[in-house]
Amino acid sequence: MVKILDTTLRDGEQTPGVSLTVEQKVMIADALDALGVDIIEAGTAVTSKGDFEAIKEISSRNLNAEICSFARIVKSDIDAAADAGADSIFMVAPSSDIHIRAKFPGKSYDYVVEKSVEAIEYAKERGLIVEFGAEDASRADLDFVIKLFDAAVSAKADRLTFADTVGVMTPERVEEVIKKLKERFSVPLAIHCHDDFGLATANTVFAVKAGADEFHATINGIGERAGNAALEEVVMAIEFLYGIKTKVKKEKIYDTSQLVERLTRVTVPPNKPIVGENAFAHESGIHTSAILKDSKTYEPISPETIGRKRVLVLGKHAGKASVEAIMKELGYKATPEQMKEILDRIKELGDRGKRVTDADVRTIVETVLQIQREKKVKLEDLAIFSGMKSMPMASVKLKINGEEKIEAAIGLGPVDAAINAIRKAIKDFADVKLVSYHVDAITGGTDALVDVVVQLKRGNKTVTARGARTDIVMASVEAFVEGLNMLL
Amino acid sequence: MVKILDTTLRDGEQTPGVSLTVEQKVMIADALDALGVDIIEAGTAVTSKGDFEAIKEISSRNLNAEICSFARIVKSDIDAAADAGADSIFMVAPSSDIHIRAKFPGKSYDYVVEKSVEAIEYAKERGLIVEFGAEDASRADLDFVIKLFDAAVSAKADRLTFADTVGVMTPERVEEVIKKLKERFSVPLAIHCHDDFGLATANTVFAVKAGADEFHATINGIGERAGNAALEEVVMAIEFLYGIKTKVKKEKIYDTSQLVERLTRVTVPPNKPIVGENAFAHESGIHTSAILKDSKTYEPISPETIGRKRVLVLGKHAGKASVEAIMKELGYKATPEQMKEILDRIKELGDRGKRVTDADVRTIVETVLQIQREKKVKLEDLAIFSGMKSMPMASVKLKINGEEKIEAAIGLGPVDAAINAIRKAIKDFADVKLVSYHVDAITGGTDALVDVVVQLKRGNKTVTARGARTDIVMASVEAFVEGLNMLL
Repeated sequence: MVKILDTTLRDGEQTPGVSLTVEQKVMIADALDALGVDIIEAGTAVTSKGDFEAIKEISSRNLNAEICSFARIVKSDIDAAADAGADSIFMVAPSSDIHIRAKFPGKSYDYVVEKSVEAIEYAKERGLIVEFGAEDASRADLDFVIKLFDAAVSAKADRLTFADTVGVMTPERVEEVIKKLKERFSVPLAIHCHDDFGLATANTVFAVKAGADEFHATINGIGERAGNAALEEVVMAIEFLYGIKTKVKKEKIYDTSQLVERLTRVTVPPNKPIVGENAFAHESGIHTSAILKDSKTYEPISPETIGRKRVLVLGKHAGKASVEAIMKELGYKATPEQMKEILDRIKELGDRGKRVTDADVRTIVETVLQIQREKKVKLEDLAIFSGMKSMPMASVKLKINGEEKIEAAIGLGPVDAAINAIRKAIKDFADVKLVSYHVDAITGGTDALVDVVVQLKRGNKTVTARGARTDIVMASVEAFVEGLNMLL
Repeated sequence: MVKILDTTLRDGEQTPGVSLTVEQKVMIADALDALGVDIIEAGTAVTSKGDFEAIKEISSRNLNAEICSFARIVKSDIDAAADAGADSIFMVAPSSDIHIRAKFPGKSYDYVVEKSVEAIEYAKERGLIVEFGAEDASRADLDFVIKLFDAAVSAKADRLTFADTVGVMTPERVEEVIKKLKERFSVPLAIHCHDDFGLATANTVFAVKAGADEFHATINGIGERAGNAALEEVVMAIEFLYGIKTKVKKEKIYDTSQLVERLTRVTVPPNKPIVGENAFAHESGIHTSAILKDSKTYEPISPETIGRKRVLVLGKHAGKASVEAIMKELGYKATPEQMKEILDRIKELGDRGKRVTDADVRTIVETVLQIQREKKVKLEDLAIFSGMKSMPMASVKLKINGEEKIEAAIGLGPVDAAINAIRKAIKDFADVKLVSYHVDAITGGTDALVDVVVQLKRGNKTVTARGARTDIVMASVEAFVEGLNMLL
């Protein structure tokens, strides 16, 4: 059983552009505790009033996890941590030539040892558990790191951490170093890795394999620069590939990842291992067809393990199997010739660089099968007005089953007003719910194409539809109306 | 010197939701060739007309790289690749029990060997270079993989590939397997890794270390599920950490990454190694202060190596050093007490969960120093109108240096119209350029807060400013006007 120090709230929060309120930190701490991490590094008490308050609040919640504050080998840092009520500190001293020169200009290596010992002794006096870390240890002289650790242990440090501060370790070097340190020290040993070369997961895994008792990680691998080792990757790799256990409740991994993404606003890319949107999504025909026969063909673990569901995505690589699954749902049947035509048209749409939504597939299927399905909802007119000194408002004319409906509404912005007006016009179908409204990040200029995807739900049926325009209001309305036509 | 097969245009394009037009594929192929990859896997010729055309067009461009098409052990796949004019095929046969059962139900292992030999022989007849891959080899019986490779080599396959199709390999197992295969086979050997457990980079690095002659990778690590090994990570790791060379022109890595992100629309997360927005950004006071003394303290490689620049980001973790750098630029000086107050206020803003932009820092500095700086540009009024049957239009009233300017403009959407109206009103400052306009992805509902960040430039000066509102038009205008006030 290996222990985990989660530093999402400290190293993770140091991600440029990220800052969390006390309330948000508490929410994340509660989630981490429920996830089963052993130690929560909740911030740096001395940094700001907010960090101090957050550590204080989290420490007062009686969580199972040990609550830790980051500290330098400085009295004020230790005092702040103790005053905030933290159980422990993760206290680092520079260990490489380059860090010692930058942080203690003109001072000797012995000075660092001396200051570290003083700081550890003081922290112990203040009743703190001390995890002592050698910063930039991977670029330091290993003999000096050992000398520093020897002194730390004599000063009664409770745990030791080897920090690969700039992510330059390689798995085989981590293994060698950890083995060497484990031979010498009997206190628990931790590893702290950064992902500058994309090796943080592997380096952490190799440290654990070599006998490290604890590893540092963040949810979604957020953190300074390329971030820290991602908790979810290390946990799944050591448990699934190496059979080494942790206390993590794996079925909570996905929800925790989503919470951290939402609160930190650091985007989890679709191709992120374990927690990315696509990690259990399949588009290509070859893959989908095999997955439908046996999910293990293209999935190393089942998505349910970490609290997720499998997704089959339609697109230009879609094969017969996934289109047939959709057609069955729509109640349509196609001859082999028609099926070929349908697949060709889906691929053609994809070749033009378009994403293929459920609504696109339906349109193609109905065109090929020559099914004349009257659109139940038609957008006849729409206008929006908004300004600095007026409420955003929208008017809409819809034809629903041939009947004209005219409505107007206000909203928090022009898009919100337009959707509110449509909602009013379709009030006979009040059971239609907007499950999600998503706009891809817009970059480039204000004339960029805006891609809106909505997910609507009615009863047990959920559909996706897209609108793509340079006008965000029109794109949103188009997506909403298209989705309605799939549902009604 | 290790060779690279880049599969951004094949495995990368299989990312759910991604599809590239022929023109986009050609742009990426040109960029990959300029980057220096050895082999460009440009698509699967048999999949669609677009893929066929793309391979044909790319093959006709006389690039330095070998142009390759993906193929199954099927005659039609080989014909399509040859007809498209590809130099080579990457042809895979299932090698694990689970894949053989899903793809050739009821057939024996010998059947797979037989079909593979036939396909290789046919491909050689058609004049193709054949790279033969064992799919899902990492979950297959290694003895069977060797048997399959023996047969492939007898049938004159030019290269062999070991594919970790579902990303379950570990570095030490890759090393063992590659060493074993290298002892037996004299044709070049390649490795193909997926990132399901976050180990694709490490596994690829270990394969290269163990003697693999070639590796497969994609730009930004895009691809099915968690994606493939990221080219930029593997190249930087093997070159910088292991001293193994490739032909890649490293200074072109960042531009290539940006091109692929733009065309595939697969977001590169800020914490992506090497190419993420934050990979060379520093916020925390400790880090920034050290970086300003010696950039190597928190940077393993210099950003220029891969064609990038370092960024110092302000935020709640900002320290004295970075704020002083900004104040110097603004021409302001603060007493130690004032500096403390400025830092406290920046931290306080951060504690409230806000990102701190250049404009925020300026406001804080001027408030603390009690500098009464009249805002040069004031937004007095703004109105937008847009609809299904009318052009989006906007009117604006600005006060610039006390002088009233009223203008109206149309645009491609309400935001575009509003910004156009402002541009007209500030036409005396035509040298102000909107460098970038970014809206964070909007999720939740249509009433979600919209976060707009603009970057404006005038001469050599570039500033960032933010607007955050539920109304995207107002948020955009607010950000633009705030930015103007920083510049004028």
